[in-house]
Amino acid sequence: MTGAPPRGFARAEFEARTSRAQTLMAERELDGLLVTSEQHVRYFTGFDSQFWASPTRPWFVVVPREGAPIAVIPEIGGPGMAGTWITDIRTWPAPVPEDDGVSLLADTLSALPGRFGRIGAELGPEMVVRMPLADFRRVCDRVAPLEVTDGTAVLRLLRGVKSPAEIDKIRHVCRLTSEAFLALAERLSVGMTEWEACREMRIEVLRRGADSSPYMMGVAGRGGYDNIVMGPTQRVIERDDILIIDTGTTFDGYYCDFDRNFAFGKPGDDVRRAHETVWRATQAGIDAARPGATTTELWRVMTTLLEEAGSRGSNVGRMGHGLGMQLTEWPSNRPGDDTTLAPGMVLTIEPGMEFAPGRMMVHEENIAITEDGCELLTIRAARELPVIG
Amino acid sequence: MTGAPPRGFARAEFEARTSRAQTLMAERELDGLLVTSEQHVRYFTGFDSQFWASPTRPWFVVVPREGAPIAVIPEIGGPGMAGTWITDIRTWPAPVPEDDGVSLLADTLSALPGRFGRIGAELGPEMVVRMPLADFRRVCDRVAPLEVTDGTAVLRLLRGVKSPAEIDKIRHVCRLTSEAFLALAERLSVGMTEWEACREMRIEVLRRGADSSPYMMGVAGRGGYDNIVMGPTQRVIERDDILIIDTGTTFDGYYCDFDRNFAFGKPGDDVRRAHETVWRATQAGIDAARPGATTTELWRVMTTLLEEAGSRGSNVGRMGHGLGMQLTEWPSNRPGDDTTLAPGMVLTIEPGMEFAPGRMMVHEENIAITEDGCELLTIRAARELPVIG
Repeated sequence: MTGAPPRGFARAEFEARTSRAQTLMAERELDGLLVTSEQHVRYFTGFDSQFWASPTRPWFVVVPREGAPIAVIPEIGGPGMAGTWITDIRTWPAPVPEDDGVSLLADTLSALPGRFGRIGAELGPEMVVRMPLADFRRVCDRVAPLEVTDGTAVLRLLRGVKSPAEIDKIRHVCRLTSEAFLALAERLSVGMTEWEACREMRIEVLRRGADSSPYMMGVAGRGGYDNIVMGPTQRVIERDDILIIDTGTTFDGYYCDFDRNFAFGKPGDDVRRAHETVWRATQAGIDAARPGATTTELWRVMTTLLEEAGSRGSNVGRMGHGLGMQLTEWPSNRPGDDTTLAPGMVLTIEPGMEFAPGRMMVHEENIAITEDGCELLTIRAARELPVIG
Repeated sequence: MTGAPPRGFARAEFEARTSRAQTLMAERELDGLLVTSEQHVRYFTGFDSQFWASPTRPWFVVVPREGAPIAVIPEIGGPGMAGTWITDIRTWPAPVPEDDGVSLLADTLSALPGRFGRIGAELGPEMVVRMPLADFRRVCDRVAPLEVTDGTAVLRLLRGVKSPAEIDKIRHVCRLTSEAFLALAERLSVGMTEWEACREMRIEVLRRGADSSPYMMGVAGRGGYDNIVMGPTQRVIERDDILIIDTGTTFDGYYCDFDRNFAFGKPGDDVRRAHETVWRATQAGIDAARPGATTTELWRVMTTLLEEAGSRGSNVGRMGHGLGMQLTEWPSNRPGDDTTLAPGMVLTIEPGMEFAPGRMMVHEENIAITEDGCELLTIRAARELPVIG
């Protein structure tokens, strides 16, 4: 696709990530980081494969206090990993459930130059240790007295601030998906199912250069939808329905995450008012997003505006979140989060409300925090609800 | 799509799953099962949402020794879960990292009628505990002396044998994806990138009624590809290339997983021989698949045939695996696995070999074990390598 940023990253990007990680590890008195999940293996190595869809084989990357990361991976991934900047690649012939990398990983961790006696792992919120937990316990036992502790803070701080090259990828997928939503309006009609509407959008983003849509949720309801997580179904869209499509679509391993609403036939006054209100709440969130502001402040300006307009609340629990290699990332725009925004953070601004019993309106845009405010990465939703037919 | 099986399952299916689980739990002296992953929550409840793409919120289902499963889930999922057969639904306003379901889950587990003092969880091979490990440890501490032990054997046995309704969904997606591969041949040409070839296949399966393609791997190489996990890239397909596309495509939450090979221009004798050899190995695997045979026997008949034809081996580690709600499931066709096949198991038959340095040939078909043999779910690959242009 023309205008697409280059795929992959320069070696300097990985060196910078590793160096930042090592600084954060030193501050937190960690001798190493152990990561097991797709996004963290990719973050440190550039290893990019869809093969993670298979849960059979565990994969490990160890970031030592000094020097480049070490890959401890199944043989099937050896050639692919050799194409990255990583040179210390240790493989075993997985799957071998009797010892699926446990010995190799434990030996690698035990041989790290020690100082603090602690290794950070993915033990905290929004993290998963992607290996059999019984094997993880074996590794922990084998490396004792080296302690495997929580490395979440390091991983959050690292990934929370994106590089310009990362933001380029997110901006690209936000842009092409925004354009796909605009084109989609021409292809929607009463009589389609929610599923068919989502299929049209899936094809539209593929044609425009997206890699995949791991999330393509669509739900319609008369005068408003009653949830934002359970679609699409085979429900036929009727006149007076409001349809929301919310998508996590990717380009080169980076996500957009935003939604658009469509009215089928002229919407009622209450729907138009709800759309206008949530549009304004989105704008208030965008306007408040700048270095030094907090996620909780973003939540508050949006909530205040919605409540003044008569919101009955929502069950979402937050009004936006981080975004990048995953559909949702730290932090959350919610009470108690209190994360201070900094340049390079990428967020969704996602206010929503139930404006009548069982009828919701949710909007979402994606932004990157800049030196003095924020950059809107998506093409802003129209202030007036788009009407189909 | 015409011919598609109904979506979802009858209530009796979930009751039967729960009942089988409870029998297996009793045999293994477990007072309950705790599951946290998308496929296990869906298996017991029917709760089907793409929202799992967000790692923020943990979800739990507890299967007690008697009675229906209990859902312990974020508020945002409450309305969706209420649409399933589950009636005992306990929610909290996630995300709340301070106590993201830990208390609610621990209270639920502690209140289970006890007999054996043990709960089974997803601790073993191919399983993941999808919640912050620090929180999992808190739950384990809170429920002591109730012990959280490995429930993998129960989950494997349960999911390893599919119901007719499950096989209907897998057969449907195998069939539509087979037809998409046949149609794809008309749309491939020299000069496309691997990425473009995969995009055409993504669109082809969507048009035919697939829900999504979480796995759509494509890689081409001159006279054979050098790996089966690192594509697609922006590499332009040239004359004399061999392209493999391997896809995990879904319908209603169930996967197919198979590949097809394409030659661009008349292939050399060595390539044609390799294709014929791996086709015959696939056939040998299919012919050997029947109740009472073992996964290791399947591996052996395929390996023997490939070695006699001069295979240089492969780095895949097995020659097929279980298939269903996940792209790859227990068991594996490999030495030492020794799982005895039984009616209702669904498997991939996936022989592959390096037939010259850096040049691989891999085939794959999907089968269901029947009372007296197996049913081929895919439309069998042509014995002759399809030639493009």
